[in-house]
Amino acid sequence: MRLKQYLQERALLVDEHLSTLLPRETEYPQIIHEAMQYSIFAGGKRLRPIMCLAGVEALGKEYEPYLPVACALEMIHTYSLIHDDLPAMDNDDYRRGKLTSHKVYGEDIAILAGDALLTHAFEVLATAAEGLPGEKRMLRVIREVAMASGTRGMIGGQVVDVQSEGKAITPLTLDYIHTHKTGALFRAAVRSGALLTGASENELSALTEYAECFGLVFQITDDLLDILGDEKILGKPVGSDEKNQKGTYPSLYGIEKSKELAREAVDKAVKSLEPLRGNTEPLILLARYLIERKS
Amino acid sequence: MRLKQYLQERALLVDEHLSTLLPRETEYPQIIHEAMQYSIFAGGKRLRPIMCLAGVEALGKEYEPYLPVACALEMIHTYSLIHDDLPAMDNDDYRRGKLTSHKVYGEDIAILAGDALLTHAFEVLATAAEGLPGEKRMLRVIREVAMASGTRGMIGGQVVDVQSEGKAITPLTLDYIHTHKTGALFRAAVRSGALLTGASENELSALTEYAECFGLVFQITDDLLDILGDEKILGKPVGSDEKNQKGTYPSLYGIEKSKELAREAVDKAVKSLEPLRGNTEPLILLARYLIERKS
Repeated sequence: MRLKQYLQERALLVDEHLSTLLPRETEYPQIIHEAMQYSIFAGGKRLRPIMCLAGVEALGKEYEPYLPVACALEMIHTYSLIHDDLPAMDNDDYRRGKLTSHKVYGEDIAILAGDALLTHAFEVLATAAEGLPGEKRMLRVIREVAMASGTRGMIGGQVVDVQSEGKAITPLTLDYIHTHKTGALFRAAVRSGALLTGASENELSALTEYAECFGLVFQITDDLLDILGDEKILGKPVGSDEKNQKGTYPSLYGIEKSKELAREAVDKAVKSLEPLRGNTEPLILLARYLIERKS
Repeated sequence: MRLKQYLQERALLVDEHLSTLLPRETEYPQIIHEAMQYSIFAGGKRLRPIMCLAGVEALGKEYEPYLPVACALEMIHTYSLIHDDLPAMDNDDYRRGKLTSHKVYGEDIAILAGDALLTHAFEVLATAAEGLPGEKRMLRVIREVAMASGTRGMIGGQVVDVQSEGKAITPLTLDYIHTHKTGALFRAAVRSGALLTGASENELSALTEYAECFGLVFQITDDLLDILGDEKILGKPVGSDEKNQKGTYPSLYGIEKSKELAREAVDKAVKSLEPLRGNTEPLILLARYLIERKS
């Protein structure tokens, strides 16, 4: 299976489903629905939904019934980006080469569009339960997704990140930020599909270890791209971490050591999948992608 | 039953439960948990949770098991106030006589505290299901609460409100704003407890009609207080609607006609409860309170 083709096909499938799950741009009040669509279809790689579906496949199950769940995760990810980009937060004008939400729609609508995507994600999860076996399992998934997105997960990481800017940070704080700000949602992504299929504790812990390694590699390579990446491919300026005096893996460990840490974590992620009996190739491809990615 | 005593007792009970459901202020990262607690305990009247519990009583059931659900609604209401007060929205420095979240914690933490309360509400709902009979009914409640809070509910109303400022609005737009911005969450509040008890369609439609009348009275009396209220009791300046050129009931219909509309809607709310066999006195008191309230 070729990596690029696989990712493109899956992203397309996720995009098609996102279209059906979001209110149309023509629905009143139009501006908020336009703003939601604008950010959802702003070129995201769909890593979280793809990981959710790949987790289901690694357990030997069909992934199609879990597409709404996968899409809900992308809505939460997108809301977090809209709010992170606001002037009061990172104050970014561009993301993936496109103007950020508040630059197009104004700060008020951008805040509300983020709120709306977060809210809609939970509506999608609760609604999706109806079509799935083991309806009650969705309550556990909703709880996990909310925890992963809240102050004990993503929001907690963002708070510490915002508060650490311009300060010297310890490896422990750096670890807290990445495991919470980005790691928690990857973890919830791979676990949510699995939980809905009725995965065993052993299967869940294999997937959880995979996701934790994946999150680490994602953050290290994200930091490396901010130094070594190509602005045109990234769609945003490089060097922003240094400018904002952000603690990063390369700033704490150096570039070569960071690359080595990333490679080790990919190997560990792949190894953690060994106990699983389904098709683990998609998850392996996804982990390898992180090392090769240019954006 | 004396109105004031009843409201105070119920608010106290809700407050006690809110304390147990929110992360403590001492939990890392402290600032976000402090900010969540600050706004939750900023003197809210707890109308939505009280209405949720009163709806359960009107069906002849015990309300205690539904306290977490009632509290989740207050978290959503509080998140909406934090975001509404932001400089990019209504830009309010005070609410209920206390500094608004962004004035105390900064805009970045205020945005995140709102996000966190919204997220936590869904975690509380999903977790509360475990202790309740008819666990699966919670999925319907989560869907209803999310819809009531999203762009087809509260956020939709807020969008049209923000976009209408300084413009002449029609009675139809005014109606859209109040039924969505405030009405939808009242409706979800009274329905969510009822849905969890397994209420019949007839019971649900009686409670829904009550909530819709209640929402209308709430909005009319809110508009009237902005003209006739006492700043000291309100804890915020009066006359802000006129200053912001907001379309209101008094501006469209005049003060006397608005008062008449409110009285009619209270009578209709009370009448809608007739088919119910439980204790409807709490819901009746709650509706009467709106006419008498000074803040």
